[in-house]
Amino acid sequence: MTVKCPSKLKPLFDYIDKNKSRFIDNLKNAVSIQSVSGDPNRRNEVVKMIYWVANRLTALNATVEICDVGMQELPDGTTLKLPPVILASLGDDQRKPTLCVYGHLDVQPANRSDGWVTEPFELEIRDDVMFGRGTSDDKGPAISWLHVVEAYNAATLDLPVNLKFCYEGMEESGSEGLHELLLSKKDTFFKDVDYVCISDNYWLGTKKPCITYGLRGLCYFFLQVSCASKDLHSGIFGGSINEAMSDLIAILDTLVDKDGKILVPKIYDEVEPVTPEEKSLYESIDFSMEEYNQDIDSPQLLHDKKENLLMARWRYPSLSIHGIEGAFSESGSKTVIPKSVIGKFSIRLVPNQQPETVEKLFREHIEKQWKIRGSANSYTFTMLPGAAPAWKSNPDHPHYEAASKAVQYVYNIVPDFTREGGSIPVALTFQDVIGKNVLLLPMGRSDDNAHSQNEKLNISNYVEGTKLMAAYLYEVGLLEKVV
Amino acid sequence: MTVKCPSKLKPLFDYIDKNKSRFIDNLKNAVSIQSVSGDPNRRNEVVKMIYWVANRLTALNATVEICDVGMQELPDGTTLKLPPVILASLGDDQRKPTLCVYGHLDVQPANRSDGWVTEPFELEIRDDVMFGRGTSDDKGPAISWLHVVEAYNAATLDLPVNLKFCYEGMEESGSEGLHELLLSKKDTFFKDVDYVCISDNYWLGTKKPCITYGLRGLCYFFLQVSCASKDLHSGIFGGSINEAMSDLIAILDTLVDKDGKILVPKIYDEVEPVTPEEKSLYESIDFSMEEYNQDIDSPQLLHDKKENLLMARWRYPSLSIHGIEGAFSESGSKTVIPKSVIGKFSIRLVPNQQPETVEKLFREHIEKQWKIRGSANSYTFTMLPGAAPAWKSNPDHPHYEAASKAVQYVYNIVPDFTREGGSIPVALTFQDVIGKNVLLLPMGRSDDNAHSQNEKLNISNYVEGTKLMAAYLYEVGLLEKVV
Repeated sequence: MTVKCPSKLKPLFDYIDKNKSRFIDNLKNAVSIQSVSGDPNRRNEVVKMIYWVANRLTALNATVEICDVGMQELPDGTTLKLPPVILASLGDDQRKPTLCVYGHLDVQPANRSDGWVTEPFELEIRDDVMFGRGTSDDKGPAISWLHVVEAYNAATLDLPVNLKFCYEGMEESGSEGLHELLLSKKDTFFKDVDYVCISDNYWLGTKKPCITYGLRGLCYFFLQVSCASKDLHSGIFGGSINEAMSDLIAILDTLVDKDGKILVPKIYDEVEPVTPEEKSLYESIDFSMEEYNQDIDSPQLLHDKKENLLMARWRYPSLSIHGIEGAFSESGSKTVIPKSVIGKFSIRLVPNQQPETVEKLFREHIEKQWKIRGSANSYTFTMLPGAAPAWKSNPDHPHYEAASKAVQYVYNIVPDFTREGGSIPVALTFQDVIGKNVLLLPMGRSDDNAHSQNEKLNISNYVEGTKLMAAYLYEVGLLEKVV
Repeated sequence: MTVKCPSKLKPLFDYIDKNKSRFIDNLKNAVSIQSVSGDPNRRNEVVKMIYWVANRLTALNATVEICDVGMQELPDGTTLKLPPVILASLGDDQRKPTLCVYGHLDVQPANRSDGWVTEPFELEIRDDVMFGRGTSDDKGPAISWLHVVEAYNAATLDLPVNLKFCYEGMEESGSEGLHELLLSKKDTFFKDVDYVCISDNYWLGTKKPCITYGLRGLCYFFLQVSCASKDLHSGIFGGSINEAMSDLIAILDTLVDKDGKILVPKIYDEVEPVTPEEKSLYESIDFSMEEYNQDIDSPQLLHDKKENLLMARWRYPSLSIHGIEGAFSESGSKTVIPKSVIGKFSIRLVPNQQPETVEKLFREHIEKQWKIRGSANSYTFTMLPGAAPAWKSNPDHPHYEAASKAVQYVYNIVPDFTREGGSIPVALTFQDVIGKNVLLLPMGRSDDNAHSQNEKLNISNYVEGTKLMAAYLYEVGLLEKVV
């Protein structure tokens, strides 16, 4: 049984419906800016994207601050200016609660040749679906907050909250510089914030909206093994040295078994035990294993029960080996013995795992395995900066109830409260640094191909998702101020 | 005790010394043509290089045939014309023996950013060393045969042999099309050939010349494992599927141990047993383990005795894992679960291993290991075209004696007879198809960095190596015709 939509929201929803084409055009412009944060050569595009949004916020009468967050050190030792972070405010009414929305304006890399059916940086509509890098992650949701403000203005409705914006351009590259900025602004810009909303995730499936109260954390590791001062010809040198590549592979082979079990001793010790109450939560979630696998076409899922699969994705750690740098990786064949190779793998953390403990366990495991291997080569083991623990909130909080009502107004269905397997470290920073309730309000669907080829956002998700944000703002306005 | 140089050779040697600068300029021009056979986008450069040499041969009054060898099928399914092969002849005197020299005009890829200290396609001289891709492998040696002919002409000396040239442009990419051409020309162009000489290898060290009578063969394998229809986000999907990357790594980890021992059952069964006579050959070879390792700076060689190291490189098989295609291989971090990954590895074959048997043993081993792994994913295992057994000749043959004398004339030292760990499949084709004695006459040194960064050829090797070719031609002219 869902709650009825207040009539006050009707003009907002109408405005959003009527301005659909223009909102799509805005997203088209945003997608055309190739703001790939991981590519130093396109840093100016990220900066361009930041100013593109900042100018629009100014046009909406927001007070906009463009915050310098310093320099980035690149792997080759050179430095590059980080893109600035937008901090903006609309309204300062002491009677209203203050909501801070977070979004990011940078995107993952994308090349047509990777297997895109459209040009990744040209928004193209096929069957009511918008294809393009950043449509769903996260330009679509990020600019929708601006469309919501526009709708309130057009409907001559007072904004129900003081609204603050925190928009960055380095999310896909570890949010470098953001944590420090948030810390430094804790007692100024963020002082009056009561609630935080992040729209940078996805529905659990393709049909039913959800509200997300948990994310896994992340530790990313580099394991480098070196065997020579230069790449060698495998004919001339094969058989005379202990090759770095076989050493690396031997160590990588000790990390995880075929059932996804992480083989590092004690790695599960810190994991929060499952209670019967928690277990019952998963049973009621609307989730189709078939639909989930249809999308990725894996020959077999690791779990045959919905609850176990959800727990594996949300509340147990997982380890993935992403690749090897320094070895031959192109198509065709090359008879090289690589001089030095870097294995890259990461672990998704869950409550109550701490990055420091996890790093220590991996370091000890690799040290032990290396001794067993007995290679004369040398290795270095590094945890990348930006490691973060998991984030978990309390879905019984009134903030979540407000978001649930907003979903019901728009979609006429009671949303599931979900967790997610991915990581958004800033969620934890907002919770711990600002000390306020954080909530994730997804706009897109599970099959939006974030980080993959053919990223997309359904037009219906874009339009209804904008209405959802408008309704959510209304409901948050009815909440008590926390301060 | 070395043999004395015949005075007849003096004017040839003088001419070569006097024309050193011009010969270097010729090599400079050749290096500037970016004839990378492995790069389809530079195929026209390979063709340009072929014609560059063909025109020079014509100017020397050779009869030149430009042989079309058909199309290449690229990994993406498209086809590309293979570069033609040069077959050229100088002289048809029935009283003289006929020598066929083989060379290749294509090169390995090279980018300054790989760690070159000079532009790879601009020959640059530093301290009497010529740096540039192809200087040593194989443009330097290949064009030197032309300089030798020029020297004989200038000295108004009759060429001591009928000279045939077989120059290709696909050696670094498996000599595609060449084998078939040789077969088809067996009874025409190659019919009268008595001896074959290949100058496409290196001295064993950096100081003493050698003549090479053996090469290892090669089987190159692709092992592909797939787990999904698209690349996946490791946060969203980590823990729910069996990842292709960990399956691949588990199988690659069963191939070779840290001491270089190949773990595929029965793989050593076909290997020719070592006789005491053979063993004694290695003891007399002039080879410094220290110098060998100084060049590559490996923390530890797999063998502590010269004989064992030489045997490991020449007469025992070795396995190298070259890399993985499809996984993340760039610098930085990416939280991807690759949908499909291809492990690339190869084995160097020795007498009497046959590619068919080796392929079968690997196929069985991988099938067995895959069953043990018990993964629900699928794999494909492929041996690349161009697999070839080892080649070994008889260094007691008069042809080798002739080459040894030529070395003594130029370097005043008796050369070692060596084998080499690399593979030149055409050596075996010449021996088996043409049925004539084949010999490898290296020009460059062991530290020439063929296939690696900073390929080079010492000017002294270039000049003395050209004299060696001139003297070798003289000595071959004194041999009996085989036919």
